[in-house]
Amino acid sequence: MDLIAIVPAGGAGTRLWPLSRRRRPKFLLDVTGSGRTLLQSTWDRLTPLTGDQGIYVVTGKPHAPAVSAQLGLAEANLLTEPSPRDSMAAIGLAAAVIEHRHGPQVVGSFAADHVVPDTAAFAQVVRTAVAAAQQGYVTTIGITATAPSTAFGYIERGGDLATVPGAFAVTRFVEKPDEETAQTYLDSGRFSWNAGMFVTRTDVLLRHLERHQGTLAAGLRDIAAVWDTAARERVLAEVWPGLTRIAIDHAIAEPVAAEGGVAVVPGGFAWDDVGDWDALGELVAPGGDGVHRVGQAPREVVALDSPGAVVSAPDLTVALVGVPGVAVVSTPDALLVLDRSRAQDVKAVVDGLRGAGREDLL
Amino acid sequence: MDLIAIVPAGGAGTRLWPLSRRRRPKFLLDVTGSGRTLLQSTWDRLTPLTGDQGIYVVTGKPHAPAVSAQLGLAEANLLTEPSPRDSMAAIGLAAAVIEHRHGPQVVGSFAADHVVPDTAAFAQVVRTAVAAAQQGYVTTIGITATAPSTAFGYIERGGDLATVPGAFAVTRFVEKPDEETAQTYLDSGRFSWNAGMFVTRTDVLLRHLERHQGTLAAGLRDIAAVWDTAARERVLAEVWPGLTRIAIDHAIAEPVAAEGGVAVVPGGFAWDDVGDWDALGELVAPGGDGVHRVGQAPREVVALDSPGAVVSAPDLTVALVGVPGVAVVSTPDALLVLDRSRAQDVKAVVDGLRGAGREDLL
Repeated sequence: MDLIAIVPAGGAGTRLWPLSRRRRPKFLLDVTGSGRTLLQSTWDRLTPLTGDQGIYVVTGKPHAPAVSAQLGLAEANLLTEPSPRDSMAAIGLAAAVIEHRHGPQVVGSFAADHVVPDTAAFAQVVRTAVAAAQQGYVTTIGITATAPSTAFGYIERGGDLATVPGAFAVTRFVEKPDEETAQTYLDSGRFSWNAGMFVTRTDVLLRHLERHQGTLAAGLRDIAAVWDTAARERVLAEVWPGLTRIAIDHAIAEPVAAEGGVAVVPGGFAWDDVGDWDALGELVAPGGDGVHRVGQAPREVVALDSPGAVVSAPDLTVALVGVPGVAVVSTPDALLVLDRSRAQDVKAVVDGLRGAGREDLL
Repeated sequence: MDLIAIVPAGGAGTRLWPLSRRRRPKFLLDVTGSGRTLLQSTWDRLTPLTGDQGIYVVTGKPHAPAVSAQLGLAEANLLTEPSPRDSMAAIGLAAAVIEHRHGPQVVGSFAADHVVPDTAAFAQVVRTAVAAAQQGYVTTIGITATAPSTAFGYIERGGDLATVPGAFAVTRFVEKPDEETAQTYLDSGRFSWNAGMFVTRTDVLLRHLERHQGTLAAGLRDIAAVWDTAARERVLAEVWPGLTRIAIDHAIAEPVAAEGGVAVVPGGFAWDDVGDWDALGELVAPGGDGVHRVGQAPREVVALDSPGAVVSAPDLTVALVGVPGVAVVSTPDALLVLDRSRAQDVKAVVDGLRGAGREDLL
């Protein structure tokens, strides 16, 4: 294959508390009840494009053993970060290590905790993105917007790339808009959701990085040069803590788009970042009683007049009476009951617990 | 004291499922979080009137050990029924045993699972009822109705008893009314709620029983005659299964009221039969967040915009977001989430589980 995948596996998934925790973040969980964790589903989606040896996972020390166990990942393909340094350092490290080992390659970064049900449609779009990347574009995959969502950033496209059918120049990236602006984006037909998927040649990526974030690029090159030697830990300890914390969107995507160096391939496949309990409920079809059973299955649900309820309660009998649209999440130490329309506010609950020093619950 | 209390301890408290179960019925539970179970609170309320030796508890075989352990009850005062035969057999058995042991006494029957916060006011009313009972009346305590409830039966009073200040003749008992009728009862000022409290001389009770339910009276006399002998188990095994199943209301209260033999003492004290999660929530003052914490305390409750919620979730951290008026009840095997206005429908859930053969959950 012509693609190596980089999967940054981080982020606690705070809004899926209390199921998702710092030590058991959502990418390690089977939140949809599919039988595979989000990380494993990401693997399943990517291996047809990369082969078993073509996936690199970048994760934090606490999660490295679980990542390795869930995927049976070759040790060489698991890059463990000493501490979180945001997405540019994670993806840049993998790109630098891959290029140092194999010379310039086309790599693609894909989050570990997104849901894409149609693997074939996804593969088709990625193949187009690889073609654009081979021509020197930093290529992003734009998710076709189906609603004026204020939860995602947007990508605006310009003219099509004559040389790659299905790919377009990117005019600009924009942050999460307000609802009115989101509606104008949707109406224009020129905007896609930004799912943080970037396909690019390592040499292109690292050259852009050198120009825009020279210190970071140099640090990553230094680490990559010794990654497969006995000096790795020493150099990591020296260099890693000083690396610039910046997202790839700000470090590369936005400035390079302004220069005309970014392409987008619109992807019509269904996609979700499983951001909160409302979104997770929508991902799983309801039973005849209208209840969405997510995650590890409850023993049974007895529901009266509770359509649209979302239940995650392993091994329990759950009775719902007159609570439509409520999400109920049971774990051994914490229980959440929320109105789905308030799904974003779970973050406030977690912030409150953090403020109260309840580290055991985070 | 001039009073011996009879406490029939039975009934599963179905509408407090999943906290209340057949093997762990509500009278054995500290549902209000007071630190005492409903049975223990009943004991605390009655001993000032009866002394420690003056309380008899009638319960089923499965609950006898727990009743004994919770109260430190003298063996002689614990009457164990081989099988449920409704309230007349339970109360009549105790009355017959007490009379056989001590001769005619004033006895009062009080449910094991009601809540009466003001013990002094309760005692005052019971003393008046004892005075009426000494004069030969079957005397009931009528709870002053504070709302047109359709959940309780009603007692209509007529003229006052000249000889006992505060007591009145009972015109009739009426079953749970519809809302319109309940309102006319409330407006009339002549109706009280029937809380199933009866104070009477044993000889008066047993004589009425002989006239209205001769077979049942004879059976109870036969059992009482041998209760404190080696023949108890044999006679129980012979006689008990054939006893008429009937409530004391139908066996005694209604026919004797029609004959002019029943008195009522209106009681202005607060009272509740803790019938369902809505009622239980009202019994416990809410916290500053508007949440009623009932039963064994949750570790903590974090509530956003959820006033009027009711939480029973021992040892858990419970987060509520945007769910006002919802009751959340967590147990190790079952979890209930319901709108408080639907509290009566918990019975339908339990009936459904019974129908599905889920004996383990009942």
